[in-house]
Amino acid sequence: MSEKLKNEELERLSVEDFKKAPKQPVVVVLDNVRSLNNVGSVFRTADAFLVEEIFLCGLTGTPPNKEIEKTALGATSSVNWRHFKTTADAIDYLKKNKYVCYAVEQAKNSISLNNFNYQSENIALIFGNEVYGVEQEVVNACDGVIEIPQLGTKHSFNISVSVGIVLWEILRGKL
Amino acid sequence: MSEKLKNEELERLSVEDFKKAPKQPVVVVLDNVRSLNNVGSVFRTADAFLVEEIFLCGLTGTPPNKEIEKTALGATSSVNWRHFKTTADAIDYLKKNKYVCYAVEQAKNSISLNNFNYQSENIALIFGNEVYGVEQEVVNACDGVIEIPQLGTKHSFNISVSVGIVLWEILRGKL
Repeated sequence: MSEKLKNEELERLSVEDFKKAPKQPVVVVLDNVRSLNNVGSVFRTADAFLVEEIFLCGLTGTPPNKEIEKTALGATSSVNWRHFKTTADAIDYLKKNKYVCYAVEQAKNSISLNNFNYQSENIALIFGNEVYGVEQEVVNACDGVIEIPQLGTKHSFNISVSVGIVLWEILRGKL
Repeated sequence: MSEKLKNEELERLSVEDFKKAPKQPVVVVLDNVRSLNNVGSVFRTADAFLVEEIFLCGLTGTPPNKEIEKTALGATSSVNWRHFKTTADAIDYLKKNKYVCYAVEQAKNSISLNNFNYQSENIALIFGNEVYGVEQEVVNACDGVIEIPQLGTKHSFNISVSVGIVLWEILRGKL
């Protein structure tokens, strides 16, 4: 029998300890993500995987925000974040700081997530707007494109689900 | 340069072709999931990964439903689903039909998702309510528990994110 663990048995970090803990060298960039529910959910996933920072770009909502909190459930206090006026500004900043930038998109010459070989370089992952995806101009500024294989009828995943899948794939060997 | 693909270039399946396509032998079971937004998002992920069926149990909402459609975006037409009055009934049905049942939970003796070795058996994955998780009684009825490692401050992922991560992990070698 597998007895469920109580919250206090999970031995999670305090916010203070989270701030001090070594992070994965991974920045999640949200390119004009409209849904505050998605933004909050990304914070929660980033907390679980010790992501270094979230860059909220353009019209992407920022904390403090009640709607973000509904899904972040406090992870806005643990995970570092900053806002950029445009996603292009964020990419500029990242490249100057030696991050390899990948858009998560469906594009010609994309790398299928199955075949993406992440070692431990500084990496930024750019996720796009719910309708328009990552802007073409932003894709052009990236070092490459990662594509999650999709075999059904729909054209895309929910953006917070995409973030979970891609972060899991690159960190699964390191957790 | 990586030119983004237009929707019509993605060569997704029609709903008719989806119904005929061979599926992964994977059933996703939702144990009293409250958020219709989460239910819709799970449909969309199940569509992308050619999941066999979704079992909606107890108070989990069912199509047709406007709120589910907001995130399913039509995937309720492609992915097969059925409703069970209780999750225990669903597990009974699955065991009689030779599915190995795993709760996705935090529990003693759980298997870390990193170490879960999925071959190609018939499998059912049970995801729980946003607050209470998978009921202990349901966990007891399962063949095992899978746990997604979480290293931060929060106690759980958003349920639609959990579904995406676990489905990706077991199907990543088969897509």
